[in-house]
Amino acid sequence: MNSNPTADIRSLVLQHWALANARDWAQFALLLAPDLLYEVPQTRERVLGRAGYVDFFATWPVPWKVDVVKCIADEQSALTLIEFQSAEPPMTGLTIFEASGGLITKVTDYWPSAYEPTPRASSHVQRY
Amino acid sequence: MNSNPTADIRSLVLQHWALANARDWAQFALLLAPDLLYEVPQTRERVLGRAGYVDFFATWPVPWKVDVVKCIADEQSALTLIEFQSAEPPMTGLTIFEASGGLITKVTDYWPSAYEPTPRASSHVQRY
Repeated sequence: MNSNPTADIRSLVLQHWALANARDWAQFALLLAPDLLYEVPQTRERVLGRAGYVDFFATWPVPWKVDVVKCIADEQSALTLIEFQSAEPPMTGLTIFEASGGLITKVTDYWPSAYEPTPRASSHVQRY
Repeated sequence: MNSNPTADIRSLVLQHWALANARDWAQFALLLAPDLLYEVPQTRERVLGRAGYVDFFATWPVPWKVDVVKCIADEQSALTLIEFQSAEPPMTGLTIFEASGGLITKVTDYWPSAYEPTPRASSHVQRY
């Protein structure tokens, strides 16, 4: 088991996306806890374990690349806001990472998509 | 203009939700920069300015309460994962806050909703 307690979480999650973009699955796997849990609450999809998570990424059927737009990190967790470049237009993803002992232990993905808003009571709401 | 440079961002955004739940709009407004920008990228809705942001909250047409599930904060930004309790089922919201000088300067809201997943190439993906 790889363990790197000195790596901070910001660096860990930025490496996660950089190695995913590079399709370097051997190095990518070294960032992950063996019992990593991946969840997509919107679809109730789940992947359990490092090998499954790598396979989920490595078998993506179409070309893709991730641009990290923003990263917020504290001592236990990080949020990345990404643009997933594959289909057009790119998809916006929000990913919450949990880490422990320098390894990613949990990944929770959100994929918010465009929708038409309902009427608002406040006259201050504009469209852009 | 209120300014409180010593308040950290975690405390600032937790106060934001606590005062919103309390409908204490006078104290709520003291957390906000005069030129605060609020955006919902999914609907391309925007509110510009402290007064407009308070009005947007204060005029919400139905009862609601926010439970903060998770907060990730660093020196410039914070993410809150909330359950917006109003309709059933509760809505999951992800809100990115930017702050400067102890005041919230930008709020970006995401409301990911449930969807049916497309088939996956990896056999490791389960439903829960």
